[in-house]
Amino acid sequence: MSDYKAFRVELKDKIAHVVINRPDKLNAMNADFWTEIIDIFRWVDDTDEVRVVVISGAGKHFSSGIDVAMLAQTATKFGPDAARNADLMRRRILELQGSFNAVDNCRKPVLAAVHGYCLGGGIDLITACDMRYATVDAQLSIREVDMGLAADVGTLQRLPRIIGDGLARELAYTGRTIGGEEARGIGLVNRTYADYDALIDGVFEIAGEIAGKSPVAVRGTKRMLSFMRDHSIDDGLEYVATWNAAMLQSADVRVAMAAFMSKQKPDFAD
Amino acid sequence: MSDYKAFRVELKDKIAHVVINRPDKLNAMNADFWTEIIDIFRWVDDTDEVRVVVISGAGKHFSSGIDVAMLAQTATKFGPDAARNADLMRRRILELQGSFNAVDNCRKPVLAAVHGYCLGGGIDLITACDMRYATVDAQLSIREVDMGLAADVGTLQRLPRIIGDGLARELAYTGRTIGGEEARGIGLVNRTYADYDALIDGVFEIAGEIAGKSPVAVRGTKRMLSFMRDHSIDDGLEYVATWNAAMLQSADVRVAMAAFMSKQKPDFAD
Amino acid sequence: MSDYKAFRVELKDKIAHVVINRPDKLNAMNADFWTEIIDIFRWVDDTDEVRVVVISGAGKHFSSGIDVAMLAQTATKFGPDAARNADLMRRRILELQGSFNAVDNCRKPVLAAVHGYCLGGGIDLITACDMRYATVDAQLSIREVDMGLAADVGTLQRLPRIIGDGLARELAYTGRTIGGEEARGIGLVNRTYADYDALIDGVFEIAGEIAGKSPVAVRGTKRMLSFMRDHSIDDGLEYVATWNAAMLQSADVRVAMAAFMSKQKPDFAD
Amino acid sequence: MSDYKAFRVELKDKIAHVVINRPDKLNAMNADFWTEIIDIFRWVDDTDEVRVVVISGAGKHFSSGIDVAMLAQTATKFGPDAARNADLMRRRILELQGSFNAVDNCRKPVLAAVHGYCLGGGIDLITACDMRYATVDAQLSIREVDMGLAADVGTLQRLPRIIGDGLARELAYTGRTIGGEEARGIGLVNRTYADYDALIDGVFEIAGEIAGKSPVAVRGTKRMLSFMRDHSIDDGLEYVATWNAAMLQSADVRVAMAAFMSKQKPDFAD
Amino acid sequence: MSDYKAFRVELKDKIAHVVINRPDKLNAMNADFWTEIIDIFRWVDDTDEVRVVVISGAGKHFSSGIDVAMLAQTATKFGPDAARNADLMRRRILELQGSFNAVDNCRKPVLAAVHGYCLGGGIDLITACDMRYATVDAQLSIREVDMGLAADVGTLQRLPRIIGDGLARELAYTGRTIGGEEARGIGLVNRTYADYDALIDGVFEIAGEIAGKSPVAVRGTKRMLSFMRDHSIDDGLEYVATWNAAMLQSADVRVAMAAFMSKQKPDFAD
Amino acid sequence: MSDYKAFRVELKDKIAHVVINRPDKLNAMNADFWTEIIDIFRWVDDTDEVRVVVISGAGKHFSSGIDVAMLAQTATKFGPDAARNADLMRRRILELQGSFNAVDNCRKPVLAAVHGYCLGGGIDLITACDMRYATVDAQLSIREVDMGLAADVGTLQRLPRIIGDGLARELAYTGRTIGGEEARGIGLVNRTYADYDALIDGVFEIAGEIAGKSPVAVRGTKRMLSFMRDHSIDDGLEYVATWNAAMLQSADVRVAMAAFMSKQKPDFAD
Repeated sequence: MSDYKAFRVELKDKIAHVVINRPDKLNAMNADFWTEIIDIFRWVDDTDEVRVVVISGAGKHFSSGIDVAMLAQTATKFGPDAARNADLMRRRILELQGSFNAVDNCRKPVLAAVHGYCLGGGIDLITACDMRYATVDAQLSIREVDMGLAADVGTLQRLPRIIGDGLARELAYTGRTIGGEEARGIGLVNRTYADYDALIDGVFEIAGEIAGKSPVAVRGTKRMLSFMRDHSIDDGLEYVATWNAAMLQSADVRVAMAAFMSKQKPDFAD
Repeated sequence: MSDYKAFRVELKDKIAHVVINRPDKLNAMNADFWTEIIDIFRWVDDTDEVRVVVISGAGKHFSSGIDVAMLAQTATKFGPDAARNADLMRRRILELQGSFNAVDNCRKPVLAAVHGYCLGGGIDLITACDMRYATVDAQLSIREVDMGLAADVGTLQRLPRIIGDGLARELAYTGRTIGGEEARGIGLVNRTYADYDALIDGVFEIAGEIAGKSPVAVRGTKRMLSFMRDHSIDDGLEYVATWNAAMLQSADVRVAMAAFMSKQKPDFAD
Repeated sequence: MSDYKAFRVELKDKIAHVVINRPDKLNAMNADFWTEIIDIFRWVDDTDEVRVVVISGAGKHFSSGIDVAMLAQTATKFGPDAARNADLMRRRILELQGSFNAVDNCRKPVLAAVHGYCLGGGIDLITACDMRYATVDAQLSIREVDMGLAADVGTLQRLPRIIGDGLARELAYTGRTIGGEEARGIGLVNRTYADYDALIDGVFEIAGEIAGKSPVAVRGTKRMLSFMRDHSIDDGLEYVATWNAAMLQSADVRVAMAAFMSKQKPDFAD
Repeated sequence: MSDYKAFRVELKDKIAHVVINRPDKLNAMNADFWTEIIDIFRWVDDTDEVRVVVISGAGKHFSSGIDVAMLAQTATKFGPDAARNADLMRRRILELQGSFNAVDNCRKPVLAAVHGYCLGGGIDLITACDMRYATVDAQLSIREVDMGLAADVGTLQRLPRIIGDGLARELAYTGRTIGGEEARGIGLVNRTYADYDALIDGVFEIAGEIAGKSPVAVRGTKRMLSFMRDHSIDDGLEYVATWNAAMLQSADVRVAMAAFMSKQKPDFAD
Repeated sequence: MSDYKAFRVELKDKIAHVVINRPDKLNAMNADFWTEIIDIFRWVDDTDEVRVVVISGAGKHFSSGIDVAMLAQTATKFGPDAARNADLMRRRILELQGSFNAVDNCRKPVLAAVHGYCLGGGIDLITACDMRYATVDAQLSIREVDMGLAADVGTLQRLPRIIGDGLARELAYTGRTIGGEEARGIGLVNRTYADYDALIDGVFEIAGEIAGKSPVAVRGTKRMLSFMRDHSIDDGLEYVATWNAAMLQSADVRVAMAAFMSKQKPDFAD
Repeated sequence: MSDYKAFRVELKDKIAHVVINRPDKLNAMNADFWTEIIDIFRWVDDTDEVRVVVISGAGKHFSSGIDVAMLAQTATKFGPDAARNADLMRRRILELQGSFNAVDNCRKPVLAAVHGYCLGGGIDLITACDMRYATVDAQLSIREVDMGLAADVGTLQRLPRIIGDGLARELAYTGRTIGGEEARGIGLVNRTYADYDALIDGVFEIAGEIAGKSPVAVRGTKRMLSFMRDHSIDDGLEYVATWNAAMLQSADVRVAMAAFMSKQKPDFAD
């Protein structure tokens, strides 16, 4: 792993732990953050040993969202022509989206472990993850409306698939802060934990369980579920049939069958 | 505001209160209702001062649904040719749908405050709103199946996005009446209140909060969330980037930033 | 009704009861199962007297999923060319999917009553049904990941529409077994019952209620709801308008209206 | 028919002739044009006697496109906030699109007869028609690129469905003017005629042929073909089955059958 | 091959020749036709030796379209309820569509060789084929409009993908008969031939060329092209990558490479 | 411009000329080609001075397609597990597709000038361009079927949008070579030229015309046309309205208007 400025990355027992590491800045997402996260997830994708990812925040919070100073800088590049400024702005937003698309498109499951603040860009990030877990005292808020803008790095696109249309709208229009328990009640997080340590233990236990499964099966499952957010059931059925046409010739199926018969824990190649 | 027969409309503190006003008829939706609601929401869209809408029912109920007498009248126009009757009926249904599309397409958030009966067309209407709130003793039912027909003014189209596929089917096939608390448990309404007065107070508080936000940001957020009911995540990301290319040059962003820095409440132009 | 090997089928009071009937094999889905289910649902579709279907398992369990011996047999047909094997496998998976598509495409509502094990293929089956009900001690699990493969007979395609994206992923990646009560909490089943007898009584009561409604209205409602899993709201509105253009000329509307006026129970033709 | 300022409208032999009638202004599309065209096509839709529409230009040209003075006026409404200006502009464009959507959505076939200039908005208009016919000396050009903007009233959306992707791009990027014969060669117009009189005679002959067919059949055919520009073949097949479920009970089928048997010309009701 | 009443089927040199064989009835499509065609194409799909299909008509014509007597029979099943009649009709149309979907979904290329009449259902059939070839004196017509109905067995759905939107509309509204040469000019047929013998020779030459290619490659190519009629370019790219992931491990690639290197004709397994 | 191994790139008069530069290898696409083309088009996108791109081949041919040696190398990475090989192959194909997606997604028009061979990957490349032009003696062929595989770098996805479904299938199944004139007749190329020099002169004249237009208008037009390959007309209309909301505030509109009024040639900023 390279040396990152905005992150700390560890790999142990086939689980990559990606830690946002600017605790004195409430893990605000600065320019380093947005470029390094792409490199990290390219490494995750290319490294067979990594089977699952946990993402969390160093210090007291997950993240307070996008670094305001960074935003301000884009504005300094504005010229006199409103159309050319719009063009510049559009490309910049697409670039930022690309950073979280790298998380969403990662071939391996990504689990977000949330404690403390998870605001604005923090919500954009965790909705690009596969699953979310939180401490009871976590504080989550779609903060963008308070900045005078519609959230444009993924929250408005991905959240309704997770919590339904009705509540997504209330949270997005009001920017209301919700706690971990309310987040669990509406399906935003799958489970809550008493405190940070219990959260990390709990999420790594789930991650460990996934890391023990066939990586071919887990990656295929992720691709299918991501595909279904945007495609018809008929398209999904045909896609999985085509996918599995190759994948069912996998050694992992034989390993799993043998383990099932002998009632032993299977051991899959990376 | 014009003078309406089926509604009473008030505008105060940037919130339009649209009241279905036929209390002695259980707020049944008659011909006036279906045409006036289009005019009202055109006015809402065109009036910068209106930032958010609350819709509720006068008297003891939200609405008992479509006026049966009105339906019967369409049938009187039937001639001897089944195909030409079908053509007539199809255009009539599209017309009725247009009335609630006016609510759905409204550029500003619409909050439904439900008490008492909310039956048949009542469900069609509230599923075209952004969010729903109810008293604990509200009674909600997809009544159309009991009229011998599939609901055709929006419920079957919009409800599954809000409460998921499994429960939507049970409620639609059986026409079972549910109370406010069950409606909240399944995500049909966001919150319940003890009685009518608490409901109105509560919903206006949420509406007031939204009215205090940047109207540019709130309208953009609504357009994005409505867009996501029908489009892929990739399409949504590109759309918000294009939208915000213009909208981030808004004065509201500067107002919001300044307020954030000075920790004061921002004051946005209409 | 023909004589089935893997099922027992009964028709009473307009409700078809389809019972998976291999109790000594934990109702594992063997070759007979996959072909007979198509015949059964063709019969359901073609028999006007059947208005609703209940599917359950004989003995102590709903179903332990696909018969492993059957899977193994497909592999025996493999030749030396990986591409031709893939082609064979792809067609085989599409064939298996076809069996549960027959359930999904059935014109009449299908209610799953789940007790005991509902594993792997069992989940594929119940997600192809309209609604799901379970005993509190039911045990449900997306088991495929433990066989080294991505589930390919419908679970990954249909489940996220029912329980949302976040929990669907956790269950699919980990294969975790959940009980009836947790299944209800996340919306996978609509209601739980204390034991098998209460389950069957409860589900038949709901089925009976549906059987008493206009079959024209119920079938139209089902078609619309199934359509909405894959289409835009605008497409859905136009479709229902076109559908109802013919269906509103139904005798059932007149029967329902008359019953409504006279406050009597309507009696609809098959 | 009302009295129009920008049009002259005639109805004869079930054919409505809609003539753009500002010959001294090269039939430039002014404010009257954009609102009146909506009224005209609402009248077409609601008038059973009208079975087909021919649209042409008075004087020497079909149309030189949008009136530049009208465009300039929108700009005068701009305020100091770029975002609010963008909002104003977006709504204005959607409004203009609505005028040609009225042509596209018209339930009856619309035939464009093009002679002389057909520039900018002229192309937007004829691509919203069902079919196009031209004189050999017609001059057609996607002129918007020369105004410094991307065509936004329908050309870029509808043209590629008609002439394919490769040529559409050349014409749109260069604004090159093509003659009637080249337009026919690439499929933009279906047929060319020597001069204006031959054009009008020819187009009315085709229109007359369509007017003699069953209006139920023609309208159904148009709806299906318009639907197919945007939907999958499977969706189209199901839609036409649902549509014809009602329409095949038409008296017109019986009339057509009888005429076919007796080898006489059928006479269909409006 | 079984014995068919409406067809004659031959297999030679890996080409199946499917001949509509009711010459004394102008090859009108009767009840036998609609069921047998499904059996024939199931046999085509399941028979490895068949690599390509040619479909033509016995006698003087390709086909005069659907047998009118058969249509009339459906009407005799009508009861007193318009809605139940519509339901019956809808299912019947879906059934007829299924017969030509069997052609469209066939995994192997299907070439239509058209001479003489190709009317109504004949056009529905040839648009479900991969490619079309005709004699110069062929007579093609979308005849349904003259029966008082919108074509509902596939023409309106598939034709615009082949000849573009503008001409498809003219032919569908007017039912105009076109000759082989005009059909070629608009892209409906790929090539014309002087007479029936030249047609059959020419089409079998093309069929033979395809039969000599890798069947794995040809089937994959067909699946991709059919997929692209309804899906986005991005979806298509991902689909072909997933498909070829398995198929590129084919022995045929090695055979083709070896033949290419040695400049010999490759010989592929079925 | 950097120094490329497989290309020569020149920029003159706002036109970038991208020349495939391996004439002694018939411009076969080797590993350098596939990576450098991404860099080149990133440079094109980021360089305001470049307004349009012409791509052609050095020496006697455009390109003979993918370098067979490169393909062979991927196979050497295969291991013993068919599923892991499939995964490797799938990612490799997606990577290759990415190279031509860079051409397709380029914000500026790309014109292909084709002479001599344009085989296999050559067709994949030119279908990713905006427009195609050729010499009369060019030789174009979808060669992949002769390699035993379905074309997977874009031809099967993009070609049917350009030449229609019927001919695309014949060319893809047979791999038949067509000349420049036949390519023009079916719409694959927009125009033909007598020889290489006339081709280059002609294409640069068209490119020069585009380079003289407003870059804001041209880029917007390209985005809209690319969008329309995959989206509905309604989606396209809303998208262009949102896009132009910002872009119509462009200085280029004012420049164009002024030039139009003064009948002078406009001069747009990059």
